[in-house]
Amino acid sequence: MLGRSIKCTGLINNLYNINNSLKVRNTLQTILRNNQVLKYQRALSTQRLEINTKETNQKPADSSTFTYRTHTCGELRSEHIGQDVILCGWVQYTRLSKFLLIRDSYGLTQCIINNTLIDISSLPLETIVKVKGTVAPRPKDMYNHEMATGEVEIVINKLEILNNVTKLPFNLRNYQKPKEQLRLQHRYIDLRFPEMQSVLRQRSSMLHRMRRFLVEEHNFVEVETPTLFCRTPGGAREFVVPTHHSGLFYSLVQSPQQFKQMLMAGGVDRYFQIARCYRDESTRPDRQPEFTQLDIELSFTSLEGIINLIELLLRKTFDGKLPKSPFKTITYKEALENYGTDKPNLKYDIKLKNVSNLFSHPSTDFGAFVLPYNNKLGKLSAKNREKINEVRKKYNVKVVLNEKITKEVGHDISNEIRIIAGETNDNILSMGDKENVCLCLGEIRDFLATDLKLKGLINVNENLEPLWIIDFPLFVKGEDGLETCHHPFTAPHPDDLHLLDSEPLNVRSLAYDIVLNGHEIGGGSVRIHNSALQEKILNMLNIDSSKLSHFINALQSGCPPHAGIALGIDRLMAVLCDAESIRDVIAFPKSHDGRDPLSGAPNKISSDDQKYYHIKCLET
Amino acid sequence: MLGRSIKCTGLINNLYNINNSLKVRNTLQTILRNNQVLKYQRALSTQRLEINTKETNQKPADSSTFTYRTHTCGELRSEHIGQDVILCGWVQYTRLSKFLLIRDSYGLTQCIINNTLIDISSLPLETIVKVKGTVAPRPKDMYNHEMATGEVEIVINKLEILNNVTKLPFNLRNYQKPKEQLRLQHRYIDLRFPEMQSVLRQRSSMLHRMRRFLVEEHNFVEVETPTLFCRTPGGAREFVVPTHHSGLFYSLVQSPQQFKQMLMAGGVDRYFQIARCYRDESTRPDRQPEFTQLDIELSFTSLEGIINLIELLLRKTFDGKLPKSPFKTITYKEALENYGTDKPNLKYDIKLKNVSNLFSHPSTDFGAFVLPYNNKLGKLSAKNREKINEVRKKYNVKVVLNEKITKEVGHDISNEIRIIAGETNDNILSMGDKENVCLCLGEIRDFLATDLKLKGLINVNENLEPLWIIDFPLFVKGEDGLETCHHPFTAPHPDDLHLLDSEPLNVRSLAYDIVLNGHEIGGGSVRIHNSALQEKILNMLNIDSSKLSHFINALQSGCPPHAGIALGIDRLMAVLCDAESIRDVIAFPKSHDGRDPLSGAPNKISSDDQKYYHIKCLET
Repeated sequence: MLGRSIKCTGLINNLYNINNSLKVRNTLQTILRNNQVLKYQRALSTQRLEINTKETNQKPADSSTFTYRTHTCGELRSEHIGQDVILCGWVQYTRLSKFLLIRDSYGLTQCIINNTLIDISSLPLETIVKVKGTVAPRPKDMYNHEMATGEVEIVINKLEILNNVTKLPFNLRNYQKPKEQLRLQHRYIDLRFPEMQSVLRQRSSMLHRMRRFLVEEHNFVEVETPTLFCRTPGGAREFVVPTHHSGLFYSLVQSPQQFKQMLMAGGVDRYFQIARCYRDESTRPDRQPEFTQLDIELSFTSLEGIINLIELLLRKTFDGKLPKSPFKTITYKEALENYGTDKPNLKYDIKLKNVSNLFSHPSTDFGAFVLPYNNKLGKLSAKNREKINEVRKKYNVKVVLNEKITKEVGHDISNEIRIIAGETNDNILSMGDKENVCLCLGEIRDFLATDLKLKGLINVNENLEPLWIIDFPLFVKGEDGLETCHHPFTAPHPDDLHLLDSEPLNVRSLAYDIVLNGHEIGGGSVRIHNSALQEKILNMLNIDSSKLSHFINALQSGCPPHAGIALGIDRLMAVLCDAESIRDVIAFPKSHDGRDPLSGAPNKISSDDQKYYHIKCLET
Repeated sequence: MLGRSIKCTGLINNLYNINNSLKVRNTLQTILRNNQVLKYQRALSTQRLEINTKETNQKPADSSTFTYRTHTCGELRSEHIGQDVILCGWVQYTRLSKFLLIRDSYGLTQCIINNTLIDISSLPLETIVKVKGTVAPRPKDMYNHEMATGEVEIVINKLEILNNVTKLPFNLRNYQKPKEQLRLQHRYIDLRFPEMQSVLRQRSSMLHRMRRFLVEEHNFVEVETPTLFCRTPGGAREFVVPTHHSGLFYSLVQSPQQFKQMLMAGGVDRYFQIARCYRDESTRPDRQPEFTQLDIELSFTSLEGIINLIELLLRKTFDGKLPKSPFKTITYKEALENYGTDKPNLKYDIKLKNVSNLFSHPSTDFGAFVLPYNNKLGKLSAKNREKINEVRKKYNVKVVLNEKITKEVGHDISNEIRIIAGETNDNILSMGDKENVCLCLGEIRDFLATDLKLKGLINVNENLEPLWIIDFPLFVKGEDGLETCHHPFTAPHPDDLHLLDSEPLNVRSLAYDIVLNGHEIGGGSVRIHNSALQEKILNMLNIDSSKLSHFINALQSGCPPHAGIALGIDRLMAVLCDAESIRDVIAFPKSHDGRDPLSGAPNKISSDDQKYYHIKCLET
């Protein structure tokens, strides 16, 4: 029943070949958009062409071990002709009471019924069947080249219904694909679509490759750290968990930050974890209350050490898809002044130009920047003008569109702007508070580029474009004093230490972010390992260091210098799969308000539970 | 600074060789018990002898990439003589202001100071230093054979203090090892002990091997499922998590059970996850509020399929340490009647004997069993007599010690008992409710065996002794009717389906447990895939199936037959490391009442937080 011989389908090998799978996925989508269900198989067979054998230095994985099928539905070829096989799967299609197409996660196989005792005429779609039969050749003129199994069919001698379908809220047909809410409500059906199968398998494969790189090549140790912990002061809102100790609550960790630093003090000098993290950020769109990050920390290293590590990790994980090291690196200030954001999308080559010195303005905070479109912008649509106006209001700056620049600033300055912008027209000028001007133009840059791309008016680089941002400020001005720009454990830049008391807002940190195609996919920093400096920073941030005494003690006990990073796995997958939302790369996501469309969670709890946890729910 | 040549220490290779590490760990303990700190290194070098090269089919991992050290403290050998090196580590020992021993997680290296500008006389232990120097040979008569690096020393030309020690609650000396509470309170220091380093590295290695087996050899897909979910009716107490939706709470999952079954409905037919699970069981000793399980589910399989899978998985993960397949398998009834427990420890060969039919008793529930000790028991100590009496009371049965058996049952029956027990004396007889009699003798069997083993009076098999228990009852009698023996999704044994209405307590299930040396390390079952049967079982268990409508819907939508299992990773590691408590194999465990000795969690929350989550803490 078990223990079968070596088998190999494209999908299986492809699990180790995520970069190719991405291409396949696009192929899949194009194909499926054409409503040609039968072409499902073709997509899978395309994957087979992409096998990267150099990654597979062992016999391929077997997808039928420990089951009562002999093969998957994507596996049979001419070479199997004459073999007796057992396949299990979903009824995809029946025709003329004679042809039965069955499907599993690996493909489609056509079965033929030559036996009057087997009646498939009333078999509902999605019924789970087990078929026993013999692999037979199709007549050459009946080959289905759209299917990887298209040269054969199974002559069934036994058909068994393993489970019935009594409720099917929607069909597995791409042309009838329901809206997201219904898909999430019945995710167990939605997952059967090939795109979802592909995403989950790619995700598993990506994480496995990352682990192999870290463990096998660089001797990292994966350590599981608790998620029930105390509150970390100064971070995001953390979920609380009542305990049966009256009035006492755990907090769900927003990251393993404190634990990984304590592991450094504990001699686990090369740590990683694919860690579940929790943040109560239900008000922010496209966030999940729980998410996954690849969490890394290393002793006796530097900013350069972590950057080298991550570049190598990403390049090994996404073989061939990323540029060679070193990736582009710019400072936070450069990012802001060139792209108007700390997560620039480098896929299109449009940069802000600083024209501030054309103006004489009393405030040092004043800035004037121009967004040059090299004659490609044309006449702005009413909708885009409206959007520009909204952004302008949000940042409280002036925005002047090309045709009005001369009127606004006079002929001379307008001419200078034109020269700085590259001797072209289609420029957008913004003036006001320098940072706001940049952020405003940054947003305009993004949505206009999307628009121009759709119209085919600008070239968009199709590659993955990673970018490091460094030299972030250590502090930002908050409502009640200084706030941390990254987190309270981030080391100040050693060159700026002398400014800590006098000009704290001008102190740079040793933090770094990695940005991919305009999305922040990770960030980290060199940490403070000196307990006195840590206490000073906590005081400057108005954080009660007594709540972190265990952490301060760890730094005092002989703690190596260390640095680390966390990569957001959901976001990284979403960028790689070109998904609209991170929900598309998560098996069972919550909707934007933190509700679970599947189970209806969160739910009311009983008065017994309230009593046990010494809490009372308040009506509001 | 980075990118160094191929290096190899025993510890590194040993990460892929957990079975050998176990032996090493015992060696380690023996050595360290002798208070010979300098022998630390020897333990590490012992590991080197155990390298299993057939597992390492690539160049060994490098432990110094991305750091500013060139080597670890366990790495230098005669072949490095003359090389300039940089090492980082903790000050382990200084002597005569001339010798400095530095330590990291990989070993110890002796440094020598020939430079009067470098003063180590006041360097506190555990200071973090970076030394730059040249590898020199030691004089042959000064070789330290206890250290892997004992043929060389480093002539330091630069010493840099990377971090000071200002607070060290205890020393890293095994002969001064503090009590558990203090160790947990300062876990970041405790982790530096070689046993803890070894456990964490073994754990990481074990999980990595499991993943490689599942992903690379058998094409399983690791899927991350949510931990914030709705309450699962009929299970353990689940932690609740308030949300900002008034009165609504998530529950922290006690296992991914529902999700993995929905993945089966969704076509992810070979699922696994190393999953974090939560149970609020603070009253049970040696439990943690959060724990890790290897969670597996497979479509189109059977009980035999899962058993084969797990045997192969464990044998591949713990190469050579486990017996060949098939592992021993006994029914629940046999376990109870032969060992008095559903998790028998097979390391000692003592079995209960059923002598019920020597007695005529009106009740069919009556049982009489004898525990034969083959003349090895001798005179019981007062302490053991007391313990026996306690267990007897707990189970409300009669227990008769050997010398009193004749007086109790008469000469004839006593003689028969003696024959059944193997013609020897030292028998313990128990009579009463059959199940209680067995459970009572099972407990006596265990603690007497521990005692006899300590006295060297019985042979204890040193091997790992895995055992499957099958044919559990589907239901047990609870206070308010039927309760599930495993969980509500477990399939009844097909041969017993006809008894479901008439004799539900006699229906066996398709559940299975795997027991290792007397500890349950995993359990699972074939699941119910038929929605009507699932609803019937839920009704019999008095569980409101409307709370599981999403789950029932999944079964109705075309759900393959499936089965699965979960292995408790903390328990498995504890058995393998012969640890007294699972706390010894967890990086940051909670103490038995669910408190975190390190941070003091759980803590009070602010009134703002209470308001945000619409709850009020009640004083009690």
